[in-house]
Amino acid sequence: MRRTLDIVDTRPPDLDDKPREECGVVAITGVEGAAELAFLGLYALQHRGQEAGGMVAVDDDGVARVHKGLGLVADVFDAESLKRLEGSTALGHVRYSTAGGGGARNAQPIVVRYAEGDLAVAHNGNLTNAHDLRNWLVREGSIFQGTNDSEVVVHLVARSRHETVDLQIDDALTHLEGAFSMVISVGQTLYAVRDRRGFRPLVLGRVEGGHVVASETCALDILGAEYIRDIEPGEVLKIEGDKVENLRPLPPAKKASPCIFELVYFARPDSRLWGVSVDRARRAFGRQLAREHHVEADCVIAVPDSANSAALGYAEESGIPYELGLLRNHYVGRTFIKPSQADRDFGARIKYNPVREVMEGQRVVVVDDSLVRGTTSRSLVKFMKEAGAKEVHFRIASPPVKSPCFYGIDMPSRSELIGSTRSVEEIAEELGVDSLGYLSLEGMQGAVEDAGPFCNACFSGDYPAPLIDVEKGYVPGNVGPSC
Amino acid sequence: MRRTLDIVDTRPPDLDDKPREECGVVAITGVEGAAELAFLGLYALQHRGQEAGGMVAVDDDGVARVHKGLGLVADVFDAESLKRLEGSTALGHVRYSTAGGGGARNAQPIVVRYAEGDLAVAHNGNLTNAHDLRNWLVREGSIFQGTNDSEVVVHLVARSRHETVDLQIDDALTHLEGAFSMVISVGQTLYAVRDRRGFRPLVLGRVEGGHVVASETCALDILGAEYIRDIEPGEVLKIEGDKVENLRPLPPAKKASPCIFELVYFARPDSRLWGVSVDRARRAFGRQLAREHHVEADCVIAVPDSANSAALGYAEESGIPYELGLLRNHYVGRTFIKPSQADRDFGARIKYNPVREVMEGQRVVVVDDSLVRGTTSRSLVKFMKEAGAKEVHFRIASPPVKSPCFYGIDMPSRSELIGSTRSVEEIAEELGVDSLGYLSLEGMQGAVEDAGPFCNACFSGDYPAPLIDVEKGYVPGNVGPSC
Amino acid sequence: MRRTLDIVDTRPPDLDDKPREECGVVAITGVEGAAELAFLGLYALQHRGQEAGGMVAVDDDGVARVHKGLGLVADVFDAESLKRLEGSTALGHVRYSTAGGGGARNAQPIVVRYAEGDLAVAHNGNLTNAHDLRNWLVREGSIFQGTNDSEVVVHLVARSRHETVDLQIDDALTHLEGAFSMVISVGQTLYAVRDRRGFRPLVLGRVEGGHVVASETCALDILGAEYIRDIEPGEVLKIEGDKVENLRPLPPAKKASPCIFELVYFARPDSRLWGVSVDRARRAFGRQLAREHHVEADCVIAVPDSANSAALGYAEESGIPYELGLLRNHYVGRTFIKPSQADRDFGARIKYNPVREVMEGQRVVVVDDSLVRGTTSRSLVKFMKEAGAKEVHFRIASPPVKSPCFYGIDMPSRSELIGSTRSVEEIAEELGVDSLGYLSLEGMQGAVEDAGPFCNACFSGDYPAPLIDVEKGYVPGNVGPSC
Amino acid sequence: MRRTLDIVDTRPPDLDDKPREECGVVAITGVEGAAELAFLGLYALQHRGQEAGGMVAVDDDGVARVHKGLGLVADVFDAESLKRLEGSTALGHVRYSTAGGGGARNAQPIVVRYAEGDLAVAHNGNLTNAHDLRNWLVREGSIFQGTNDSEVVVHLVARSRHETVDLQIDDALTHLEGAFSMVISVGQTLYAVRDRRGFRPLVLGRVEGGHVVASETCALDILGAEYIRDIEPGEVLKIEGDKVENLRPLPPAKKASPCIFELVYFARPDSRLWGVSVDRARRAFGRQLAREHHVEADCVIAVPDSANSAALGYAEESGIPYELGLLRNHYVGRTFIKPSQADRDFGARIKYNPVREVMEGQRVVVVDDSLVRGTTSRSLVKFMKEAGAKEVHFRIASPPVKSPCFYGIDMPSRSELIGSTRSVEEIAEELGVDSLGYLSLEGMQGAVEDAGPFCNACFSGDYPAPLIDVEKGYVPGNVGPSC
Repeated sequence: MRRTLDIVDTRPPDLDDKPREECGVVAITGVEGAAELAFLGLYALQHRGQEAGGMVAVDDDGVARVHKGLGLVADVFDAESLKRLEGSTALGHVRYSTAGGGGARNAQPIVVRYAEGDLAVAHNGNLTNAHDLRNWLVREGSIFQGTNDSEVVVHLVARSRHETVDLQIDDALTHLEGAFSMVISVGQTLYAVRDRRGFRPLVLGRVEGGHVVASETCALDILGAEYIRDIEPGEVLKIEGDKVENLRPLPPAKKASPCIFELVYFARPDSRLWGVSVDRARRAFGRQLAREHHVEADCVIAVPDSANSAALGYAEESGIPYELGLLRNHYVGRTFIKPSQADRDFGARIKYNPVREVMEGQRVVVVDDSLVRGTTSRSLVKFMKEAGAKEVHFRIASPPVKSPCFYGIDMPSRSELIGSTRSVEEIAEELGVDSLGYLSLEGMQGAVEDAGPFCNACFSGDYPAPLIDVEKGYVPGNVGPSC
Repeated sequence: MRRTLDIVDTRPPDLDDKPREECGVVAITGVEGAAELAFLGLYALQHRGQEAGGMVAVDDDGVARVHKGLGLVADVFDAESLKRLEGSTALGHVRYSTAGGGGARNAQPIVVRYAEGDLAVAHNGNLTNAHDLRNWLVREGSIFQGTNDSEVVVHLVARSRHETVDLQIDDALTHLEGAFSMVISVGQTLYAVRDRRGFRPLVLGRVEGGHVVASETCALDILGAEYIRDIEPGEVLKIEGDKVENLRPLPPAKKASPCIFELVYFARPDSRLWGVSVDRARRAFGRQLAREHHVEADCVIAVPDSANSAALGYAEESGIPYELGLLRNHYVGRTFIKPSQADRDFGARIKYNPVREVMEGQRVVVVDDSLVRGTTSRSLVKFMKEAGAKEVHFRIASPPVKSPCFYGIDMPSRSELIGSTRSVEEIAEELGVDSLGYLSLEGMQGAVEDAGPFCNACFSGDYPAPLIDVEKGYVPGNVGPSC
Repeated sequence: MRRTLDIVDTRPPDLDDKPREECGVVAITGVEGAAELAFLGLYALQHRGQEAGGMVAVDDDGVARVHKGLGLVADVFDAESLKRLEGSTALGHVRYSTAGGGGARNAQPIVVRYAEGDLAVAHNGNLTNAHDLRNWLVREGSIFQGTNDSEVVVHLVARSRHETVDLQIDDALTHLEGAFSMVISVGQTLYAVRDRRGFRPLVLGRVEGGHVVASETCALDILGAEYIRDIEPGEVLKIEGDKVENLRPLPPAKKASPCIFELVYFARPDSRLWGVSVDRARRAFGRQLAREHHVEADCVIAVPDSANSAALGYAEESGIPYELGLLRNHYVGRTFIKPSQADRDFGARIKYNPVREVMEGQRVVVVDDSLVRGTTSRSLVKFMKEAGAKEVHFRIASPPVKSPCFYGIDMPSRSELIGSTRSVEEIAEELGVDSLGYLSLEGMQGAVEDAGPFCNACFSGDYPAPLIDVEKGYVPGNVGPSC
Repeated sequence: MRRTLDIVDTRPPDLDDKPREECGVVAITGVEGAAELAFLGLYALQHRGQEAGGMVAVDDDGVARVHKGLGLVADVFDAESLKRLEGSTALGHVRYSTAGGGGARNAQPIVVRYAEGDLAVAHNGNLTNAHDLRNWLVREGSIFQGTNDSEVVVHLVARSRHETVDLQIDDALTHLEGAFSMVISVGQTLYAVRDRRGFRPLVLGRVEGGHVVASETCALDILGAEYIRDIEPGEVLKIEGDKVENLRPLPPAKKASPCIFELVYFARPDSRLWGVSVDRARRAFGRQLAREHHVEADCVIAVPDSANSAALGYAEESGIPYELGLLRNHYVGRTFIKPSQADRDFGARIKYNPVREVMEGQRVVVVDDSLVRGTTSRSLVKFMKEAGAKEVHFRIASPPVKSPCFYGIDMPSRSELIGSTRSVEEIAEELGVDSLGYLSLEGMQGAVEDAGPFCNACFSGDYPAPLIDVEKGYVPGNVGPSC
């Protein structure tokens, strides 16, 4: 056998067929050695962004120090870098950086020295008027270092003609449109804000002597912090040590629209978002899916780990036994070497392996949380059949993904979304399954209706916040830009 | 709150409370670009050793090139290093290196130039007479570079007075005592050998044009290789491309004694070892455990991921619903920063988080595969109670670990083994559980009796192979040395 | 003997007792692969700054790419980084960065994207109103990344309300006070400017198809470029490929005041500055020194290499034979390890070693170019006596250094300048010499009078350009800040 | 102008046209913190090898620690690595490693653990029977890690059947043929040996509490150590702290033959070798050269820095004024980027620049120490003429180099040696000079006859020690292998 050794380095996420969240943020104030806590918080939020991480800490003199790098949080920081990050206020950020968005220059938090002191910003979400604002600022003489949205915020604060920091921040925030759950520090004072529609989550917690703000409650848990409440859409908090103050809120939206995809896929199952347990929400999706798409079968298996809860829900409702039928390899490094001649199942093969004894001669229901391009799923079905499965019934615990997201999720372009270009029958045929069933939009929303309403633009194409940069032609309309 | 910033870098494995396998090996011959396949094989065997990895490839002129490094396989190799590893024969190795056994100098494979050409060795297991052999060789004028067992093998081959390579290798192997599943290359010729008691697994597979030898079948799966058979205890194979030849076997042992801990914890659930599916073996352990230690409860959960199969078996047999109650964080970097003042639950907290909604007010059965020091388990019980569990019933799908292993598993010293120093009642009290049950030795062996007999020294203290270095006082008798 | 191993890493310049130039600049336009030429130019200018180097290249689309780093030019750039620097315009910079001025963040050239395109600046000299300008800009909302003067220039250009780039640059330059020989690119258009007093040198040359601007003529020589002329004080050139245009000059000064210390020490002897050969100027200093301070002696030696020319001039005029009596070690790495218990001659000892055969029993005249702290000189005298010199007569080819420089030379504070705090007799005693003679200010100026007048502030304390930041208290008056 | 950006990284030595010494060694014993002294010694010996450096230190328990790396000594070692090198005995080595001889694997000192303890070797010179010995050892079962001569020595010691270390070392040394000035440590005991013909230098010095052995006296000077004497050809010293003992000498040679090229080019002018000052020897060469090849001219200049002494000697004898006419750039990094389309003067241009004012309209005598390929010299002549020199008279302070060296100098093959393939007239024409004169072999030897006799094989082809590997065909006879 002759193999061509034309090998390429691939970033591990490309092995997968999932949309990419985007970012996670955490902030601590009022606690000596805040960076140490922020580090743990970021570690708990690693699933929200694996390509870069950064922290800023602010010491008692208001001096901010920053450390950022490419890679996992546990690789970016070591004891030495952490020791340098002195002070009782710290901001942290993890991100999935998009292809062109290159490297360390765009890593967050951003920190600058401006007239009132050291200013740092970490941001989850995507502004829909970032290009528009940037063009205006450049015309006014502002000089930008990178290309991420947060730099726009920094310049807006620095150029505000208002006299106090509180008013400067209020001034800056009112220019922003789209999705932003954001933490800002000026000196050791912390500001936390969620856009008026509340696309991205942001929670408030208490630690001894101070406060924590984080994207998800799992970041509070790792710190032993007490969950206080979600920060509300439009809310602007000013936090100094153990004191929390509500500043003037942002102009209210007609209705809030938190992202339902957080419940479908992004958030960790042990987190609680907008009043609902992520695990319980996914179980409810799975049960509803079983009601909508029953089938006679011998076992139910999940595509691990994101669909574990939904698959268990399906098994529970259908009475079909739950099995562990696919093994997932978790040892992912910074990059992964991929032969250029690799077959199209390569990405799936290095990640998943079927347990032959579970498959042999069985009718298998396999549950996944969502379907984006469908490439990995097609490979999985093939592996399962090769391992002896008699029938494969694919069940998706969410509706077909049809439209790009402009609020902070990185998705392929519309033409790559299998749910956008093909009917369910065509998809079933392409995957090679014996049957295929998607959870209905109504079924999904009904399962978590107490927590709604939600933004479901990626399923419905119904965008709650205006797409200013798209409308002005700054960014293409068929691809959602990332945070 | 005042926190001391006396931070230390910790290698990730210390966060865990499991014994350490040791090593994994893979070898390919007869396939152009063999290193590319060996790389994938190592990736599938990563669970057998995460601290160092290495490969040797041998080109058509018999020239061996080596690349080794500390870290995960996907970090050690990149496109450039892989391209340099030319040739149709390749050996790969992953290892968990022990504390003192420092770094790259002891990484495998070992490769040297000797009179007959380039000689490479990769080894899984632990020789019980390595110190004894080394002392003898040093007295004879041999110069050693590192401290690992494989270097002894290399010197034995190089100094043999026999005329052919086959006989030199036979000569060397007959000096070895203890556990060794080993692959050796001289030029492009591959030798594969398993010690006469067969402690460690080693399987033979076929790829187009050549052969694969690997520690587990999951390494064959990732290559799309066909499983041929296990290499038998005492068997010595000589493999040239598509030709496999049996050399003179090693002197037979009274009975084979493959390691039952491979089924309990080490091997991947999608592998098949000594004729049994690892997943099915663990399911059987879980079912037997339910029979031996039933309890009234509301749900069964696993300590993920190693106890998933056993917990499902327990749920199946007991009729108690299976739940996903503990989340495991998989984003482990090379090192992890740990505050020196961290509480004793720190290691468990950064790895596991309970799902509060599963716990609240429930009587929970939690299943783990084994109990070593008990430290992580104590923290888990505490977390579960804090998350609202009404009762916690701990079930262990193997007997108490009482004795160190001298055949390739790195375990704490006897005094640290909770099963060695305390009764079951004392352990239950120390863990703070409402009840505790271990699978019995008979129950465990009965569940997989078709595949036995096994070495169960770590449970029983009954050592099948003589402990020569221990008896001669070269190594302490209460700690098992690592491969 | 017991030695304490309390070792420290020292940057090599600390081994020396010389003032520090500051910076060197080079710019090329109109030549494909301009970065390659700029790289060679920087290499020839390495003596003007050894701590950091950087280049910007601008391609045909006006896109600027930058590469900077700490260390020598030949270490900062490799084939890969050079290939990335595409385009026919390039700017390069070497700098000696001061202690606090930390690292890569302040390395030049600075490059930013502003409303008119990519803007890059490289600067030699020191603005005397940089703090004043920066404070004003920050109050206006400008955000600064680092602390070097050039960033002020960039913001002044970006905020100019003028409509064309030419006018924006003119606008920015009129705000600057002090010393600046500067190259600026906007897209592929190059601007070259020298402040109205012309403190620092800047020359114009021609290469096939385009032009070169550089701090010294030796950078033209290495490129095989033809020297056209010096850029005049106050001149602003706009260069596009082979076209050179004079823009409106800066407001004229009463008289030009180029830095005489360039002739004394900084510039390379093979360069020609303001119409005079550096080697010939130093020879003239040496001859005049011999006239002013004759002594009966057996040989004349130089402190190599900066005093070689002056020593030869002294020998020539006095008739005393020239000898090679001190060896200088040129193998300086990035840092140098220095025992903390090292005697005070350590710095001199690792750099110089006397040739015993030249010293033994001789009356030696040793010539140095200038005397700053006197520490190295004291050690040298000691070494020479230990090597057997009967008499040591120290001769300095410039007057006593008494005042700090605010125009681009980094000098110790006034209290560390031996010439500021002590009489010539006291210095002679401190050095342990048999006689000491400084060249007189009049003698020095007379030797190069055709090329003057000069700034001689470091010798005379007479500062030609106003010290605005000093007067406003932003920087201390007894230390000259660096470029 | 179109320039192709096909750039290559070049190691700096290739810019030069000089033969390469080879190696320098230093050893200290009896001084706490010996590594610190050895580091300084290596720094003073850096001219003997710039590509790699290493040190071994041995602590009070006899444990040897090693640190080696590629690059200059000041880059290889930092405070941390030096602190790790504990103990009162240390060995250091610098080397110029040949093209294929790759990197760190062959760096010295070599250190191994053998039956009697930790054994380290550092070696200057070249064994002429290394391949022959190695083949024999490999047949006996020895395993080699690298390819350098010193590893042969280590194996010979380890395999000796003698009972004491002293006898084992004696046994090993008697097998060696060719050139070796060597330091060996076993535990903290130091052995120093020079081969029986004494090709390479080795001197003994005293420091407080102990002793120093080094290649040149300049390494003693930097330590403040007292020079005791040269180690004699064939002498074997055993040094323990302040105690020096003579072991049995090596079998005597007919006559000693120290390398005269050390005086011509390699050694530092401030060193004293075999009883003569290097500076004075070169002055004598220059004076004799003036006598043999007088010419009417306006000035004498040196090719700096190696020919400075000889040029001054020529000026002194001829009465023609000495001038500084060529500037040498000392800022050489680890590698140097060279355009592949660079003209053939490139290497010389980045290293040398003529001082135009010295050249213009003058008849110039330029003195170099030796001529190897002649490439750099041809470029220099061209530069000088372009800078206006009316006549260029080239003078070489040694005879034509005609034969490769097999005793530790790396020279080009015979066909590349301009002195081997061409007559003096042809060379003069190729260089483009107005006249050319070489110092005669008799003139050279006469100038330093008190210190002789010498090995002059590279000039005369008369090899004092048998070339065993060449005769057996292991290495080519027209190229001298390097140490």
